[in-house]
Amino acid sequence: MEHKIIAINAGSSSLKFQLFSMPAEVSVCQGLIERIGLDDAVFTLKFREQKISQTLPVTNHQQAVDLLLSSLVQHGVVTSLQEIEGVGHRVAHGGEFFPDSAIIDENTITRIAQLNDLAPLHNPVNLTGIKAFRTALPDAKAVAVFDTSFHQTMAKMDYIYPIPYSYYEKYGIRRYGFHGTSHKYVAHRYAELVDTPIEQLNLITCHLGNGSSICAIEGGKSIHTSMGFTPLAGVMMGTRCGDIDPSILPFLADKEHQTVEALNQMMNSQSGLLGVSGLSHDFRDILAAAPQNERAQLALDMFVERIRAYVGQYLVKLGKVDAIIFTGGIGENSADVREKVCRNLEMLGISICDEENHSGSTIFSASRSSIALAVIPTNEELMIAQDVMRVEKR
Amino acid sequence: MEHKIIAINAGSSSLKFQLFSMPAEVSVCQGLIERIGLDDAVFTLKFREQKISQTLPVTNHQQAVDLLLSSLVQHGVVTSLQEIEGVGHRVAHGGEFFPDSAIIDENTITRIAQLNDLAPLHNPVNLTGIKAFRTALPDAKAVAVFDTSFHQTMAKMDYIYPIPYSYYEKYGIRRYGFHGTSHKYVAHRYAELVDTPIEQLNLITCHLGNGSSICAIEGGKSIHTSMGFTPLAGVMMGTRCGDIDPSILPFLADKEHQTVEALNQMMNSQSGLLGVSGLSHDFRDILAAAPQNERAQLALDMFVERIRAYVGQYLVKLGKVDAIIFTGGIGENSADVREKVCRNLEMLGISICDEENHSGSTIFSASRSSIALAVIPTNEELMIAQDVMRVEKR
Repeated sequence: MEHKIIAINAGSSSLKFQLFSMPAEVSVCQGLIERIGLDDAVFTLKFREQKISQTLPVTNHQQAVDLLLSSLVQHGVVTSLQEIEGVGHRVAHGGEFFPDSAIIDENTITRIAQLNDLAPLHNPVNLTGIKAFRTALPDAKAVAVFDTSFHQTMAKMDYIYPIPYSYYEKYGIRRYGFHGTSHKYVAHRYAELVDTPIEQLNLITCHLGNGSSICAIEGGKSIHTSMGFTPLAGVMMGTRCGDIDPSILPFLADKEHQTVEALNQMMNSQSGLLGVSGLSHDFRDILAAAPQNERAQLALDMFVERIRAYVGQYLVKLGKVDAIIFTGGIGENSADVREKVCRNLEMLGISICDEENHSGSTIFSASRSSIALAVIPTNEELMIAQDVMRVEKR
Repeated sequence: MEHKIIAINAGSSSLKFQLFSMPAEVSVCQGLIERIGLDDAVFTLKFREQKISQTLPVTNHQQAVDLLLSSLVQHGVVTSLQEIEGVGHRVAHGGEFFPDSAIIDENTITRIAQLNDLAPLHNPVNLTGIKAFRTALPDAKAVAVFDTSFHQTMAKMDYIYPIPYSYYEKYGIRRYGFHGTSHKYVAHRYAELVDTPIEQLNLITCHLGNGSSICAIEGGKSIHTSMGFTPLAGVMMGTRCGDIDPSILPFLADKEHQTVEALNQMMNSQSGLLGVSGLSHDFRDILAAAPQNERAQLALDMFVERIRAYVGQYLVKLGKVDAIIFTGGIGENSADVREKVCRNLEMLGISICDEENHSGSTIFSASRSSIALAVIPTNEELMIAQDVMRVEKR
């Protein structure tokens, strides 16, 4: 029997959605409402071979949801809203409350709100989206899918920071990790591809996009990931610095008379590829500029080295690794980055096949490589729809 | 011909020294003056089989130096001060000025002072020691040996941080690394031991003490190290946190209304083994408490995991590794830590021999291990004396 499930990603002024027919996993339509709150909001809808774009005033998320749903009926994507049996919401932070996706009820909503402090830019808007859909589709099964859940299997020695322990007890300061939906999705896809139970696989997954993170997955369970208490930590990103000597903050606060808030802003919005190159946060711009621009080349080299550092860390962490998987905008599209990350690692059992890498093959390791190399497009929306089907009330 | 060379390590209220007969590399005497500035300073001197300890007022570093030198004559360690041909001073920070140890002249002194900002707790007191010896032994050859010099061979992609590039240009914010004298010393000692030119060896050196750092050494040159802009970064230490998500600072500044300076203090003095265990910064206390104390066990596990993370990172960085070397108080004395760091790495070519590890053998890898494992006691003072002999005016 067919079930229509919609996956939702609510941002501060945007609402992204994709409608699936399950269990066939067919994407029926997808779209985006941007500039919510403004008179010239933009609504884009793609279905069948069509793409519709419309500029109109959208006051708030409730209006955006109503617009989206009425358009689905209007364009005949669904005959009535009752057809949409389930709604899956991407939620940034599930803290220690949610080791898995969860049916949305009053308790779930309260918990998500309790975590606002840990994700002040995301959890409140995720909740806005959740509430708008509860009003619009009160009878649909609603599920929250958290970016953090997949990493709740980390051992305590890997999630506690070496600072006074009371900060963990008092504020929940610990490694949470993010991009969990993506890491989990590509790990499971790889297991399907090689027709091996995921319990028998040790994987390193590299989600490389404007935000990037690396994950060590042992038998299907995340045991470590590069992002930490916040999505700032780990590898170098478009505008985020990732790991740096934390003493740099007190030094700069003193020299530049900057507030801690301004320094936080600097680390999140003016660092990474943008900060080093001075050119752009967009990886494609950096790659294009590198041959003739020293600072773009430096940014590119640093980006790669910091991924390699985590790959090395996770080779040791896992002891035995079956495959390294690349995903995300950069991981899926840049053969160049994949080549640079994997080069000169023959002694560790990693050999790339240049031809397969450049031709877009899913597996691009050389046949002699004891660790497989793979590219697997991520699909967080599908993973969310799958979770809506899977998750039952606890 | 015999040359007497003294190695000096000046702290804010202490002066450590060791007198060598070179080139035989024989330690003639060593000692320490503590509590400088107080009425009950303590002077300890060890030579031949004797140990002399004395409590007396010592007003400043100049008095400490005079006391030390007159004692050497008084106890017949030297017949006259003219015998001391060279003085080597440990200096914390050489910035980008000093890729090697340097003869101390007016220019060297000016440069060291210019770096006070980067090492406010160390460079000024190191200079105090230097000046005191220039007054006391004006004719001796004086050499500054920097903790940072050995790491000046790092590539730019490895020393630049992914924050706005202007901070490097304006303030010199970059990875410098420390413990250089120790990493260099044990790398060269290992090359001698295995009778191989150091140019042909790739090594990972683990200096584990109250301060700890890991170094990747390619053909005798440091290409990466875990400490960074300051000695706070990298692995977990006695009271220092090492790498953490830098977002934790803005979060805590907001929640705890703490100043950045207080947070810096917390990261340097209340974190690491002490912060996690709540018991002690001393590794021996943690090791003893771990079996019956959950938080001590957690601190121990974290300490080991964070070393392993760097070992993995450097396996990838170096591509091919000949040996992993342990040194420093913990590295030299804790077979337990060495065992935990090296376990389950057979797939990466690392196999430990438990018997050799516990019996105190220099080489403790199993014969099948493609990467050798070694314990080499560090001797920074001897390295300083060697540099006094080696370095010539540029």
